[in-house]
Amino acid sequence: MIAFHERDLRRSVAQLLVVRASGHAFDSQRQFPKWELSNYELQQLLEEDVGGVILYGGTTIELQKRIEKIRSWTKQPIFLCADVEEGLGQRFQGGTWLVPPLAVGQIYKNQPAKAISLAESYGNCIGVQARECGLNWVLAPVCDVNSNPKNPVINLRAWGEDPLTVAVLICAFNKGLSKQGVLTCAKHFPGHGDTSVDSHLELPIIHHDLNRLKELELLPFKEVISSGVDTVMTAHVLFPNIDSNAPATLSAEILTKLLRQEIGFDGLLVTDALVMDAIRNTYGDDEAVVMAFAAGADLLMMPANPKKAIDAICTALLSGRIPMQRLEEALQRRKNALAKVYVSDSTNFETEEKLDHYLIERKEDKCLAEELLLSSTTIRHQVIPGNIKMDINLVRIDCLFPCQFLNNYSPALCMPEEAGYKTTVCHQMGVSPWQNDAENPLALERFGEGSFLLQLFIRGNPFRGSFFNQEPWLATILQLQRLNRLSGLILYGTPYFWNDINQLLDNSIPFAYSPGQMNDAQKHVLISFLQKHQDREMKPKQFSEFTD
Amino acid sequence: MIAFHERDLRRSVAQLLVVRASGHAFDSQRQFPKWELSNYELQQLLEEDVGGVILYGGTTIELQKRIEKIRSWTKQPIFLCADVEEGLGQRFQGGTWLVPPLAVGQIYKNQPAKAISLAESYGNCIGVQARECGLNWVLAPVCDVNSNPKNPVINLRAWGEDPLTVAVLICAFNKGLSKQGVLTCAKHFPGHGDTSVDSHLELPIIHHDLNRLKELELLPFKEVISSGVDTVMTAHVLFPNIDSNAPATLSAEILTKLLRQEIGFDGLLVTDALVMDAIRNTYGDDEAVVMAFAAGADLLMMPANPKKAIDAICTALLSGRIPMQRLEEALQRRKNALAKVYVSDSTNFETEEKLDHYLIERKEDKCLAEELLLSSTTIRHQVIPGNIKMDINLVRIDCLFPCQFLNNYSPALCMPEEAGYKTTVCHQMGVSPWQNDAENPLALERFGEGSFLLQLFIRGNPFRGSFFNQEPWLATILQLQRLNRLSGLILYGTPYFWNDINQLLDNSIPFAYSPGQMNDAQKHVLISFLQKHQDREMKPKQFSEFTD
Repeated sequence: MIAFHERDLRRSVAQLLVVRASGHAFDSQRQFPKWELSNYELQQLLEEDVGGVILYGGTTIELQKRIEKIRSWTKQPIFLCADVEEGLGQRFQGGTWLVPPLAVGQIYKNQPAKAISLAESYGNCIGVQARECGLNWVLAPVCDVNSNPKNPVINLRAWGEDPLTVAVLICAFNKGLSKQGVLTCAKHFPGHGDTSVDSHLELPIIHHDLNRLKELELLPFKEVISSGVDTVMTAHVLFPNIDSNAPATLSAEILTKLLRQEIGFDGLLVTDALVMDAIRNTYGDDEAVVMAFAAGADLLMMPANPKKAIDAICTALLSGRIPMQRLEEALQRRKNALAKVYVSDSTNFETEEKLDHYLIERKEDKCLAEELLLSSTTIRHQVIPGNIKMDINLVRIDCLFPCQFLNNYSPALCMPEEAGYKTTVCHQMGVSPWQNDAENPLALERFGEGSFLLQLFIRGNPFRGSFFNQEPWLATILQLQRLNRLSGLILYGTPYFWNDINQLLDNSIPFAYSPGQMNDAQKHVLISFLQKHQDREMKPKQFSEFTD
Repeated sequence: MIAFHERDLRRSVAQLLVVRASGHAFDSQRQFPKWELSNYELQQLLEEDVGGVILYGGTTIELQKRIEKIRSWTKQPIFLCADVEEGLGQRFQGGTWLVPPLAVGQIYKNQPAKAISLAESYGNCIGVQARECGLNWVLAPVCDVNSNPKNPVINLRAWGEDPLTVAVLICAFNKGLSKQGVLTCAKHFPGHGDTSVDSHLELPIIHHDLNRLKELELLPFKEVISSGVDTVMTAHVLFPNIDSNAPATLSAEILTKLLRQEIGFDGLLVTDALVMDAIRNTYGDDEAVVMAFAAGADLLMMPANPKKAIDAICTALLSGRIPMQRLEEALQRRKNALAKVYVSDSTNFETEEKLDHYLIERKEDKCLAEELLLSSTTIRHQVIPGNIKMDINLVRIDCLFPCQFLNNYSPALCMPEEAGYKTTVCHQMGVSPWQNDAENPLALERFGEGSFLLQLFIRGNPFRGSFFNQEPWLATILQLQRLNRLSGLILYGTPYFWNDINQLLDNSIPFAYSPGQMNDAQKHVLISFLQKHQDREMKPKQFSEFTD
């Protein structure tokens, strides 16, 4: 009898796990095979009642088929979630890719009503497209206040730099998203905005006490909880003045006392990814899972080893280290959350009939994407002067494999080439463009003649740590200015680096900034930059090819 | 009445066109928007009875959906074809990607029976997977004899370097392929093997006369035609000693007199892509289409402007320049060919029931891919000696966007990195690795300390022309050898460059050659190269992730 009970217990505990898989169909297509289960492993875990899958990568068409397949591998309702913060197209090709939320926060400064309306449409756009692909849980909004410009991991993902902006915008976003019948998620509790290290690599520490948190970080969470967010995700951040022993994800003080008891959140509480090094390095895989569950988390996201995680929690429950009541309440909350979206499955949403399932992106989604782009882009001077034939289009990116925003038809590459430029792409794996000279860091002889159009793609990227800080782009700008070889500069990404550039860039140099990095952002800026120059033989027909 | 007739004529002529589209679902995903119709254009043309679509790119899952959609846009049976010469995975992710045909030709030298059996399996593998995705016409086998090692465009795509090898292997291939209920295509008539310029860029000229052609080039075509190939594709090659006025694609002498009358081929004859510069630059878009049709081609592949192509042919027919009989016979051959595969649609093939439609790749396909890889790879010395910590993994590729065989989990990048190497990827768009010194072309200070593992991905690539010839890799090998900084060399691609390297490489230097460039080829070589070195902390578990 005990063996039988244990099997039941394992199946119940398994329901609390959310495991990671690729949105692609085949194992060989996985972008991150270290983290993404093979189909064999995934099917096996689902047969053992693992309760959710988080998906990354692939196209919307593939995702629909993929989710059909995953559903066929399980007997129970499960969570099908994705980390979609900037439009479905951020993770799945064919969906709409919107400029990052911080751009909406900037709009709020001058046009609050417009920003609120955009935030609601932003949520709506994600919700419709996610549901259409078969997802039932979107891991957004980010509720962190990006009070620290050096934040390498939140940065543009935040909705603002002050608690009121964030609170207002995430509530609007959450309203738009949850109307579409998918679950929403407020993250990363109790706040990840004031960190300067990447929790994917090491554990960030925030020394604020509870009073400060209540004044700032907690405000957006309280607002969105009271306005009805479905789930909350924990932060892998240590708050030694609140709990010196454990980071938020593993802290009963923060999860149970603060979030449950003081704030009164009674929905589903999920950890951030437990494979992140901030947690693994300090606590070990199995202990982290047990601590998180004991501390009050209901769902365990991406445990390093799902089967061992189930074992460890079962052991803790059977030994009495964790009361069975924890399991019961977590399962009940899981059931309640799923009931919402599994009811929704059979509901006909207003937009349903109008959609061609083949085309995930609606007309209004395209309009929203364009409006956000236009509202958030700054362009100074429309035309690049100078000699064209010998000019250099220097494109700086973080990462080559994969690079989501560059492909062979990207405007950042094609449009300057059509205008006579020669493109060089600098990336972490390329031949170095640098020489050992602090004043003149760019090794010019590696590029040939002509002046430079610099296109810098720079934003806080999880897992990249401070890699960007090692590249002397500011000194390069000064170097090229001194030599009169800087014909234009475009920054796609973080507004904080834009501020740095602004302080040293000559007024005469054409400059543009866009928070978005996608093809549409490139096209929008480069049309202004290149189109009107009379010496240039532009071929507008070529550009129209970038439009759908 | 004439207006009505003209509309009917337009619809009939439209059936002779094959237009190009992306295998991806959405316009924004097109890899080559200049050549790939938008969905709007494609739907419109199909409604006007355009008779076929050639597809490039996407995944097998997407392709299935894509073809469903395309079929819904037309009222008639149409050709759904792809340029799949090296396994479906060459064009569509998720399919099997096999080493190029020339590798089978090499096996034939010592093991003819094995090579013939492999060639039949090769065809079978493509046929099953193509049909499973909804394709009904595979544009293979290449029947050209690669008698010219400098051939930039056929090269590894050929089945051999002599007519008998090619004839035997393509017949076996054609047998395997056509058994699966898809149409096959012998190309490029009357032979493209002895060219040294890329017909995608300029018109190749071959000065052989008819006697030489009969002795060599025509032999494989005759064999495969008599053994039952469904269609033949023309070559964009000028043979001035046969027809001094027009290249094969536009030559009645070659298409009608030689192929139809002398050789007696009565199947469907299709042009090579009419957008290729070899044709466009000399004859103009509309005239080329009319000339090809007049000369005897039944189907017109990828005309630059489909609507204008229809107009031009209608005009030629109505004016009497081309007799109506040409249209009737072309339509009849089209109908006959389609009848074969549209009957097949309802036939249950032997393998049908066994296939999980989600998984295109069967177990036997994987075995075939592995056997071909093992049979075609040469590895000299299993282990790279030397200091690891500071070593450089220098990977040379042609093209970055897109690069089909490199991604963030590619063994060529990951395996040396796991073993302590630092990777630099050299590509056409990168910072130059070269300095102006013929004896010492590699600018070593751009790479840092340590010795080099050179991984060169080099093969004849359409559209690349002679780009590779400008890179001094042979001098670099000598340079690194002199400095004792060459720790190993791997060539993925053309056997001809392998011969060049062999003549100057020290015997002591570990060396490997694989005709395949795909991840599996990289993994196979690098396991031998790296695994057995004792100083290296290898993590075999990591490698197993590359296996499905």
